[in-house]
Amino acid sequence: MATTDKRDPRVVRTHNDVPAVALRLLLDEGWEAVTPVRVATEAGYSRATIYTHWPERIDLLRDAFAQFSEMPHHEASGDAELDLRGELASFSRAMVEHRLDRALATLAERTQTNPEIAPIRNTFVADGERPMRHTLRALAEDPAAEAALLMLTGMVTHSVLMHGTPPSDEVLDAAVDIVMRGLAQRD
Amino acid sequence: MATTDKRDPRVVRTHNDVPAVALRLLLDEGWEAVTPVRVATEAGYSRATIYTHWPERIDLLRDAFAQFSEMPHHEASGDAELDLRGELASFSRAMVEHRLDRALATLAERTQTNPEIAPIRNTFVADGERPMRHTLRALAEDPAAEAALLMLTGMVTHSVLMHGTPPSDEVLDAAVDIVMRGLAQRD
Repeated sequence: MATTDKRDPRVVRTHNDVPAVALRLLLDEGWEAVTPVRVATEAGYSRATIYTHWPERIDLLRDAFAQFSEMPHHEASGDAELDLRGELASFSRAMVEHRLDRALATLAERTQTNPEIAPIRNTFVADGERPMRHTLRALAEDPAAEAALLMLTGMVTHSVLMHGTPPSDEVLDAAVDIVMRGLAQRD
Repeated sequence: MATTDKRDPRVVRTHNDVPAVALRLLLDEGWEAVTPVRVATEAGYSRATIYTHWPERIDLLRDAFAQFSEMPHHEASGDAELDLRGELASFSRAMVEHRLDRALATLAERTQTNPEIAPIRNTFVADGERPMRHTLRALAEDPAAEAALLMLTGMVTHSVLMHGTPPSDEVLDAAVDIVMRGLAQRD
């Protein structure tokens, strides 16, 4: 809320504008485009401003990915089956509508050669998984809850990154059905 | 078998050597390293030889990825639960031991900006999924079989690319358990 943010309004604006520009560059032109110089030009700030707030390029990248945390999640209803379907649907939609597919592919690929990226990826992924993890923990303990989380999120990640398209609604529904029955039937 | 391959043995050797070198370059140094010139140097062939057999760079990349099809899969026993566990274990192992994680991350990322890569990725992924698809089709029809396939393969892909490590054996076992029970309990 604006009233609780005691920072200079210009600093607040900078902290909102610049990561949005960095994310757009990342998704439109790829990783290499996200440089302090390029971001300064595109966002209409001086390089000095950029370097003051984001001393390292990795800081810009971290804040670019953090933009995704603003994305709408499914609103939890308390009905596990409904909530799992809702989360899977919003995850699948974000892949296409918010180009989350590109963000995840980039993080996966860059982490392979640059371990410095791993903490950014880990935070990003943990934030995204949180609502579904919460729903599943109410249904089962580990390792079953963790297995269900990896299967449900993984089916969307795998389908999008490896098949080039999210699972159909019919397949997503079948998956939730299998998981709900499989968890309920455990000893 | 050598007796059924009527090609010049030198050509056969070239067709074995060069993709192996291309794959090693890809995994060690990344996508950009796989050029006809670099592959020729590393494999000890003339550039002319490379261009004769692989006129385009994409041909080299395709054959580099095809090297993975030689990788051992789990030997099917006919017991679905055992076969699913075995396939998941060998998929997880390949991620680490054969750097399949890097191959998949590269394909996922490159396809985002270069649609020419999609057919290579699709063939690669379909080949890898075949044994598990076969096992699951004996247990269920679509969309349940497809959902189970995406969940089981996806949990490994997601865990490796997004969490940086394959699922533990305990979590893989729990997943197979959920899927077997979930499929058995359907109406």
